[in-house]
Amino acid sequence: MTKSTEDSLVQRIVKALLFPSGHPLPLGAGDDAALLASKPGYQLILTSDWFLEGRHFLPSKHPPDSIGWKCLARAVSDVAAMGGQPRCFLLNLALPRRFAPSAQGAASRWLLELLRGLRGASRRFQCPVAGGDTTEAGNILICITVIGEVRASRAVTRSGAQPGDQIFVSGALGQAELGLRLLRRAKRRARTTNPALQKHLYPEPRLSLGTWLADQKLATAMMDLSDGLSSDLPRLCITSGVGARIAAAALPYPRLPGAAAKLVFDPLDLALNGGDDYELLFTVRPNNLSRIPRSYSGVPLTQIGEIIRGRKLRLRHVDGRETSLLAHGWDPFLR
Amino acid sequence: MTKSTEDSLVQRIVKALLFPSGHPLPLGAGDDAALLASKPGYQLILTSDWFLEGRHFLPSKHPPDSIGWKCLARAVSDVAAMGGQPRCFLLNLALPRRFAPSAQGAASRWLLELLRGLRGASRRFQCPVAGGDTTEAGNILICITVIGEVRASRAVTRSGAQPGDQIFVSGALGQAELGLRLLRRAKRRARTTNPALQKHLYPEPRLSLGTWLADQKLATAMMDLSDGLSSDLPRLCITSGVGARIAAAALPYPRLPGAAAKLVFDPLDLALNGGDDYELLFTVRPNNLSRIPRSYSGVPLTQIGEIIRGRKLRLRHVDGRETSLLAHGWDPFLR
Repeated sequence: MTKSTEDSLVQRIVKALLFPSGHPLPLGAGDDAALLASKPGYQLILTSDWFLEGRHFLPSKHPPDSIGWKCLARAVSDVAAMGGQPRCFLLNLALPRRFAPSAQGAASRWLLELLRGLRGASRRFQCPVAGGDTTEAGNILICITVIGEVRASRAVTRSGAQPGDQIFVSGALGQAELGLRLLRRAKRRARTTNPALQKHLYPEPRLSLGTWLADQKLATAMMDLSDGLSSDLPRLCITSGVGARIAAAALPYPRLPGAAAKLVFDPLDLALNGGDDYELLFTVRPNNLSRIPRSYSGVPLTQIGEIIRGRKLRLRHVDGRETSLLAHGWDPFLR
Repeated sequence: MTKSTEDSLVQRIVKALLFPSGHPLPLGAGDDAALLASKPGYQLILTSDWFLEGRHFLPSKHPPDSIGWKCLARAVSDVAAMGGQPRCFLLNLALPRRFAPSAQGAASRWLLELLRGLRGASRRFQCPVAGGDTTEAGNILICITVIGEVRASRAVTRSGAQPGDQIFVSGALGQAELGLRLLRRAKRRARTTNPALQKHLYPEPRLSLGTWLADQKLATAMMDLSDGLSSDLPRLCITSGVGARIAAAALPYPRLPGAAAKLVFDPLDLALNGGDDYELLFTVRPNNLSRIPRSYSGVPLTQIGEIIRGRKLRLRHVDGRETSLLAHGWDPFLR
C-alpha cells in the first residue's frame, strides 16, 4: 500500500505538532474526526478564525514561525475573551503545489518553520492539534478552530455591560499595529528579535487574566480586541444595548521606538484604530472597582472610560472636547 | 453607531441560517465564540473540511444552493462515520469584494442561494450554525467545522478491523463521480433536477445508518467514502494494520443514464476511484453477518469483500484474476 500525497502531508503535520507527553485526546488527527470528552460542570467554547496569505500575513515580510504562532494565538484569544481555557484545535491548511511533501528547498523549510511556530503556540497554550483538513490551493490558506472550556455559567459574553460600568483594557493599545507599520516599511522579512515587532508577530492571548475575571465574576462583559478599540467597543456596546465614553488621556498608548517614530505615527490613531492587539476589553461594576489590580500577572489593566445610557460612543479628547468615536479599525471589505 | 461591512455580512448570514424554532444553543454567532453544553454520557466529535472554489466546486457549473448544501453535508458525513449525530457547525466564509453586503445583482443572488442550500442542509441534519469567521479573499473559500456527539465508548474508528471481518458499503459507488463527469460535459450550470446529478450535488450523509451500526456495536471499523474506495479502503486498512480483498462482481455499481453513457464510462473505474459518494465503508465480524440487513432506511448495504492478514489490498476481477488494488481516487496534490 502506498500513501497518497495528502496522507504524507498530514503525517508530516501531525508529527511536527506532537506533544512531548501525555496531553491525552481519546482520538486525534488521523481518523474521520476527533473525539473529545468534555469535563463535567464545564461548557465548551467554539471559535474559528481565517488566516490568509496576502490578507492576514505576507510571506515576504512575516517570518513563517510567527505565522504559525499567530494563527493559533488569535483563535485562542477568543477563548480567553469568554473566560475559558483552550482544549484542542483543528488545523485546516491549504498549500500551493510547491509545498507537496516531496518538495525540497525553500518551500519545505518554510513549512517546517510554520509548523515550528504553531507547535510553540500549541505547547504554550496547552492546546494540542486534534485534526483538520489539508488540500491544495493557489495561495496559503489557514483556518483554525479552537475548542475551549469554561466553568458552567462563568462564561463572560459581550452582552452584560450596564450604564455606570467602568471600561478596562489590558496591556497597551496599538502596539501590534505599530509593529505592522514598521514591518511594512522594512525592505525584507522582519528580524524576529526586534522588540517593537514582538506584539505584532507573537501575540499572547490573555488566558490567565480572562479566566481570573470570569472565575471571580468581576467582568460584566468582555471581548478581545482584534480589529481595534474603535471597531470592537461598538460591538460590545451594541450587544449590551448601551453606549460608552472613553477618555483619550486615559488610553494605554504604544511605546514608540525613538524620536523619529513620534514624528511619523499618531499614538491616538494607533491606540484607537490599531488591530491585532489581542488584549482584553472588559467592563466592571462600580462596586467591584477596588478589586481590579493595576496589573495582573505582569499585564497592566487600565481604566479607559465608562458605559453610558443610550447608544452613543463618545471620545473625550485631551483638551476636554468631546466627539463621536468613529470606527476606523480593521474591516476586511474596506482594505 | 454604524456597523462595519463585515458585521453587516455576518448579520445577513446569521439571519439566513436561523432555525425556525427552538434548537437552542446557549450562545450562537455574534459573540467572541459559541458556548455548547455537552450531554452527560456522550463524547464530542470534531471535524473540519475545506470547500474551495476551483478545487471542490466550480461557480460556472455548480448551482450555488448545491455548494451550500454540500459544504455542510460532507463535514456531517465524518460525524456519521464515527457513529454520531451533529450538534452544530461553524461557518468560515471568505468572499471576493463583489459579495460585500451592499452589492446588488448576480453576486447578491448567488450568496442568497448559497445560504439557502446551507440552511436546507442545516435543517435536514438538525445542525444549526454556532459561529465562524468572515473575511475578504480573491476566491470563494469555505471551511466548515462540525461538532457532533456520540454515546461514550460507542464511537466507531478506523482501527478495529480484523482478519475475517466482512467489508460492507452503503448505497452505490461512483454515482457522484458520474454526476461530476456529466456536469463537466455540460455547457452551462447544471439543472438541479437531473437525477443522475443528485448524488453529486446534494449528497446525503448516512447519519441514521452510522448511529445504528455504532449503537448496535455491529461495525468493527468504519469511515466515510470521500475520495473513492481505492483511496479510502487503504486508510482503514493501514489504521487497523490489516489487508483486504474485494470482489469486482460484488460492487454496487452506479446507474448509468442510457446506452450512450455505457460506451463512455467504465463502471469499475467509477466504483473504485470515484470520489464524493459519502457512503459508509464498514467491517463486520462473521458472527454478526446475519444481523446486517440488505438495506437500512432504504439505503442498500452490500458485502464487497473481506479483511485479510498482512498489508495487501487485492481486487478479484469478474474473470477470477486477482490484482493489486491501486489507489486512484482523489488526491488534491495530484489533480
